[in-house]
Amino acid sequence: MSGGTSRETPLRAGILITGSEILGATITDANGPWLIRELNGRGVEVAAQLSVGDRQDEVVSALGHLAGLGCDLIVTSGGLGPTADDLTVAAVAEWAGRELYVDPALESHIRELVSRAGPSVNPVSEKARLAGARKQATVPAGATVLEPAGTAPGLVVAPTVEGAHPVVVVLPGPPTELEAVWERALDTEAVKALLSAAAPAYVARLRLFEVSESQIAEFLRGCENDGLLEGLEVVTCLRNGDLEVDIHAKRPGDTKVVEALADRVAGTYGRKLFSRNGNSILEVVSRKLTDHRLAVAESCTGGMLASRITDYPGASGHLLGGAVTYANEIKRDLIDVDEALISEYGAASPQVARAMCEGTLRRFRADLAVSTTGIAGPGGGTPQKPVGYVCICAMSASGLVVEREVVLGRERNEVRRRTVTLALHLLDELLDRLAGVPFDG
Amino acid sequence: MSGGTSRETPLRAGILITGSEILGATITDANGPWLIRELNGRGVEVAAQLSVGDRQDEVVSALGHLAGLGCDLIVTSGGLGPTADDLTVAAVAEWAGRELYVDPALESHIRELVSRAGPSVNPVSEKARLAGARKQATVPAGATVLEPAGTAPGLVVAPTVEGAHPVVVVLPGPPTELEAVWERALDTEAVKALLSAAAPAYVARLRLFEVSESQIAEFLRGCENDGLLEGLEVVTCLRNGDLEVDIHAKRPGDTKVVEALADRVAGTYGRKLFSRNGNSILEVVSRKLTDHRLAVAESCTGGMLASRITDYPGASGHLLGGAVTYANEIKRDLIDVDEALISEYGAASPQVARAMCEGTLRRFRADLAVSTTGIAGPGGGTPQKPVGYVCICAMSASGLVVEREVVLGRERNEVRRRTVTLALHLLDELLDRLAGVPFDG
Repeated sequence: MSGGTSRETPLRAGILITGSEILGATITDANGPWLIRELNGRGVEVAAQLSVGDRQDEVVSALGHLAGLGCDLIVTSGGLGPTADDLTVAAVAEWAGRELYVDPALESHIRELVSRAGPSVNPVSEKARLAGARKQATVPAGATVLEPAGTAPGLVVAPTVEGAHPVVVVLPGPPTELEAVWERALDTEAVKALLSAAAPAYVARLRLFEVSESQIAEFLRGCENDGLLEGLEVVTCLRNGDLEVDIHAKRPGDTKVVEALADRVAGTYGRKLFSRNGNSILEVVSRKLTDHRLAVAESCTGGMLASRITDYPGASGHLLGGAVTYANEIKRDLIDVDEALISEYGAASPQVARAMCEGTLRRFRADLAVSTTGIAGPGGGTPQKPVGYVCICAMSASGLVVEREVVLGRERNEVRRRTVTLALHLLDELLDRLAGVPFDG
Repeated sequence: MSGGTSRETPLRAGILITGSEILGATITDANGPWLIRELNGRGVEVAAQLSVGDRQDEVVSALGHLAGLGCDLIVTSGGLGPTADDLTVAAVAEWAGRELYVDPALESHIRELVSRAGPSVNPVSEKARLAGARKQATVPAGATVLEPAGTAPGLVVAPTVEGAHPVVVVLPGPPTELEAVWERALDTEAVKALLSAAAPAYVARLRLFEVSESQIAEFLRGCENDGLLEGLEVVTCLRNGDLEVDIHAKRPGDTKVVEALADRVAGTYGRKLFSRNGNSILEVVSRKLTDHRLAVAESCTGGMLASRITDYPGASGHLLGGAVTYANEIKRDLIDVDEALISEYGAASPQVARAMCEGTLRRFRADLAVSTTGIAGPGGGTPQKPVGYVCICAMSASGLVVEREVVLGRERNEVRRRTVTLALHLLDELLDRLAGVPFDG
């Protein structure tokens, strides 16, 4: 399966997370997402991830399931500790039909590691320590042992006949150990040979706003009729109101078909396509903010817009600050919103959103302001202004205004998150207009 | 399999997360951990969790694998959208051997939901809307349809002959929709009958702050020596700086041994134990804030504290607002922080944190204020004040002050999140002191 210089299909991997604690209520696995990123970055597609408890028969059956999906590589996490419920090695040996044996050099090496690391934290008895070291030095015949980062060695179990079964990389569960031992696995002959056949797949990561999943579905059906989807896999996903469209070439070299479809998207959606390289709207807008002085005023988002802007590590270069004006009296006191305006139009209104920007520009001596006001719910909705009704305004000190009055979702946190995302898009549009970027919206 | 009044073995469930985006590098699944907690809390053991891409044959084979583990229940997440790569329903029908049909009443209901939610934001073509509604109204024969929380209905597919296959609950992927539709699944006959056979284990969910994992580990070793851990399973987990200690009884009736250990924790840690029922510090503090007028001032947290406070649906009852004073000039202009103080002690200093509270109490006419200032990183650290150095102050208009000067983590977002958590704890302490609650800290 490996070894060829080119492949028709991408390499596929399966991830197997073992440990009953992962399927208990309080620990969330972090190794799966980390391994997915690692494998994807090396051009390996992840076919499936499976989490199972500490039962040997179920670990064996999980390995069989992943092999059955046509995986070239299986990476396991966890179950390498010194106690009896750590049984990944025994399961891998059973599944691959290998004898287990104690590696004497490894055993004395682990004893040394344990005695170095152990006593201050866990006062383990000498007997338990020796039994543990012996257990951790028990490995399947023919496996390549990977130097421990803690006390548990990793393993690479490659098939004796090429292609007879997937290459299995066995890694410890603690994330820092897993990451270190994975690096060592990458240096083994078996894994190197396998990965040399993986060409990182060509992907265009398009990001659009104010485009729905059904719209893009209809657009893609049209492209399919025109033969533009040949050799491509297209994955769409809605996140915080933005639409992510990843176009993958099924064959590594097919960059042109990817770009042809991306161009069609660009021609159809204009500036609603805000990124072709997977950058989030926060990254896109933050990079354009250099030399600006930005301030925000938030009602319904309650600080979430400022918080998102300051997620960007360089935010102090352009963000002066913000006013969270949750109560109406604070809109008046902090950023000079006329109470008559609130009485006449309501706090959630385009008029108040504008006034919030005007006051914020003045009070912060900013050159750009963005404001949000709306009905986040669960209470406060009316037939005219239901939960999800929001008004967003972006304004420059020079007098340019970009604004929206929309309904964004029905659940409090969805409304807030989508409002923040749309506010960043309005700011992006304002920045483009200020910079004289041609605008077709 | 279900229906009995008592069982020798616990109910087992399998979780199936579908969606190629989950196995791509950019999205991390949140539904799996949520479902694990839900199921565990209802006395159901999770046998395995499986994540697969958008391929019908692989979804079918995943269902088969979970059924093969002896699962009584399978819960799926995702793949219910209006587009062709959403194929969970078709896969479940294939696996269970059911015909698919379009439910006309459901189709017109979904059309209505789509037209209600859609038009103002996403001008979807009528044709795409109709095709999407038809696809989402296509269900397996004999399935129970669950009312959508967005536009995607959920399903319960129970075997026609009891025990012929696991009960399958099909849920949408967006987390808020998944949670709402799951509640509806719990009300169906098939799921009710199944869960009635599960005995929820007795659990005490203790929440502590400023206690480390090694401290609690040492404490638990002492308890073990005293025989206090007999019949218990204790799981600890650090989240946003708070320590979660869940004490499970191994046998359903063993409430007393759980409470005995919880009492020992309470006796040892005093008010560092802030919840015995799993409530977060946000819930604990929000409930105490009734009739108060709170305002916040944030530097390093940049809006995240206000955002977290407004996550609580009743926040408008007690939060006036906040000032995000990222730039020093804004600390001066918005909340009257003396520039001389900043020059003398630095913006990240206990003196400035106090001044921020004083100015905020005055400017917002609040009776409670909380402030944060520190070095979130990645830049700006010094040997005296490294990245993670933060000063937090909580102050009442009556003159009570609770404050901390600490180093909280090393990574920007970890520092910000932990600062927000600790700020809520200081506010909680301030509220308790104001209310005259005995304080031993």
